[in-house]
Parts: sequence; C-alpha cells; structure tokens
Amino acid sequence: MADFPQPIAELIEELNKLPGIGPKTAERFAYHLVQQPGDEIKKLIRALNTLRDTIKTCGRCFRFSELDPCSICRDTKRNSSTLCVVAHSPQIGLVERTGEFTGRYFVLGGVLNPVDGITPDRLNIDQLVARVQDNQPPLTEVILALNPDVEGESTAVYLKKVLSPYVKTVTRLGRGLPVGGDLDYADEVTLADSLKGRRAT
Amino acid sequence: MADFPQPIAELIEELNKLPGIGPKTAERFAYHLVQQPGDEIKKLIRALNTLRDTIKTCGRCFRFSELDPCSICRDTKRNSSTLCVVAHSPQIGLVERTGEFTGRYFVLGGVLNPVDGITPDRLNIDQLVARVQDNQPPLTEVILALNPDVEGESTAVYLKKVLSPYVKTVTRLGRGLPVGGDLDYADEVTLADSLKGRRAT
Repeated sequence: MADFPQPIAELIEELNKLPGIGPKTAERFAYHLVQQPGDEIKKLIRALNTLRDTIKTCGRCFRFSELDPCSICRDTKRNSSTLCVVAHSPQIGLVERTGEFTGRYFVLGGVLNPVDGITPDRLNIDQLVARVQDNQPPLTEVILALNPDVEGESTAVYLKKVLSPYVKTVTRLGRGLPVGGDLDYADEVTLADSLKGRRAT
Repeated sequence: MADFPQPIAELIEELNKLPGIGPKTAERFAYHLVQQPGDEIKKLIRALNTLRDTIKTCGRCFRFSELDPCSICRDTKRNSSTLCVVAHSPQIGLVERTGEFTGRYFVLGGVLNPVDGITPDRLNIDQLVARVQDNQPPLTEVILALNPDVEGESTAVYLKKVLSPYVKTVTRLGRGLPVGGDLDYADEVTLADSLKGRRAT
C-alpha cells in the first residue's frame, strides 16, 4: 500500500482488525477520521484510553465492568437466589433490557466448541460450579441463556450435568415463534418447539 | 444505555460516528476491543495519535499527507505537464494503482452538488484554476477523474468551462463496459457509451 501516507496505512491496518471490517471499509474509516476536526479524533482516543484504563472483569460474575464487584453484583435489591448464565458479557445487557429478570448473572466466556478447541477448561465452568455450590442463599434456579444452536445446546447439556448436584432447577430459554413471526415461514424445528411449548391462553 | 458500563457506552458513542456504523455494530466493535490484550488497543490509540499529529493537507495538491509538499508533488521523476483531478484524496491511490498515470494530482475536495449546498466556492476550484494557469511547464492535459454520475458529470462540465482558457486538452475517464462485464446485463447508457468509445482491435 505504497500509495497511502504511512500514518494512514498504519491506521487502516489497525481498523482492519475490527470484526467484519475489510481493508476497503478500514480505508473509508481512516479517511473519514482524517477529515474530522482534531477534536473528534481526540474524543475517540480519549474513549479508547478510558476503556483501557478502567474496564476490568468483575471477579464475581466475569462481566466487563469499571467496578469489581460490578454494579449488578453490588446491587443489594437484586434477587440472589436466581442466576442467569450467558456466554458473553454484552448479553447481560440484552437480558436486562427485557426487564423480566431481577437475579444475578454469570458470564461463561463462550460456549463449548471442541472443533475450535473450546473445551470446558477454557470457559469459566469451574468458577460457575463453585459459585452455584457456595451461593448464599442457596440458588433456587439457574437459567442458561445460551444461543439456540448446536454449540449453545451442547453447552447447556454439559452445564445441566455438572450443576444439577448443587441446584434443583436448571432451565433454558423458551423456544418457539418469535414475535411478528409467520407460521408460513417458520422452519419445522421452530414450529415443533412452539407446539411443545404451547401455553393456555 | 444504562446497562453498559460507562466507558463502554462512551466508546460505542464514538464508534457509532464512523460512516455506515450503527449502534449494534459499534457495540460489537467496543466489546471486541475490550476483549483484546491491552497491547491491541494501545496500537490503535498510537495509530490515531500519529494520524492526528502528522497528517496535513499538501499545499500544492490538497492531498492528505505527512509531508507538505507531499511525496508525489516532490517527486522530480513525475511528468509535470499533465494533471489528474480527483474529488477525494484516497482516489489518488486508486489511479496510482493502475500504473497508467505518471503526472501530478489535484484534489478538488468533493463534487458540485447544489442540493447539499456544495457550490464552487466550497471546493478547491479557485486553487485549481490558479494552478492550471501558472503551471510550469504549461499543462498539456487535465484529466478529470470524477465519478460517472450526475454530480461528477456536472462538475466536469463546470471545470471544463473554467479551465479551457488555460489548457488545450481537458479529458474525462473513458466510459463503457467494465472488465468481466456482460453485454446481457449492461444498462443501455453503458452500452451506448461503449459503442461511442469503440476502438480498433
């Protein structure tokens, strides 16, 4: 890329590392940034510096947070007898926005995927078992909020096995038709799930 | 966005300003960055800082460059009697990569677009006229490498008018079928252009 000025080429190389961003889009980002008034780049630099300096992993739930324990783990008004397990930190935000859950969270750090070398020891599974074992008050329910795909399902099966000695109820998210979905276009597995999970109106 | 830690929310806000990036993708970028080892964020910060500190606009051709005059304007081996006009700085790279042009460049800073308020005084047109007028040796050709769309075409018509007193030949890029194109799928304007621009084999 001899025809880019060196500082722009270097920035393109860094932006190219963002997920889903190829060299063309990285180039567009770089030229966008170079055309901004100096303040805009400064604000981005400041936000990155703050991120680097302040974000840690909560020692209790493994969520990314500027506090340790994080704000949710500190919150005394939450229900400590239910625990929601997610694969990745930002998924806590998705569950929070539903307003349907008032318990605690635990971030697994991924899902089992032997093909990619993600075995149980690569995830926070030992810590989860310890947490479920020692939780005060004892947990009444662990909700596994994992993706409804092969990796999510097999991780749920594994977790159910290792957690069931310590907690009575291990649940997964309900399956069926999404809101606004259309029977005509639902795949047969989703339709079968929606029948199995039918409810009285 | 109360459920994002504050530093992550701030970074999402900044990344959201990148062209074509909505809040969901900005969130994905932010969580990608937070999961990188500290060195990766540091490299991005360093690249942004270097960009901010070193990139200026070349006073001769208005290209973004760490040098003023830029490396192309300094290069004594280039042909100073032809000038290629582009709308935006990175388009110089596109022309350079063809290996077909050895002259000098000039960055217009955009194209005329009265609807968006881009009138001639908002572009580097006065500077272009002065450059064409004073160029030593006198220019033999100005190539207008502008997009083949309404704004590019009308900008080319305008530039042809203001530049023709000072230079004999003002050309535009050839029009016709792109390499790998298919007659069956070419629109009629492109096909008409390819007929008008036909060449002896």
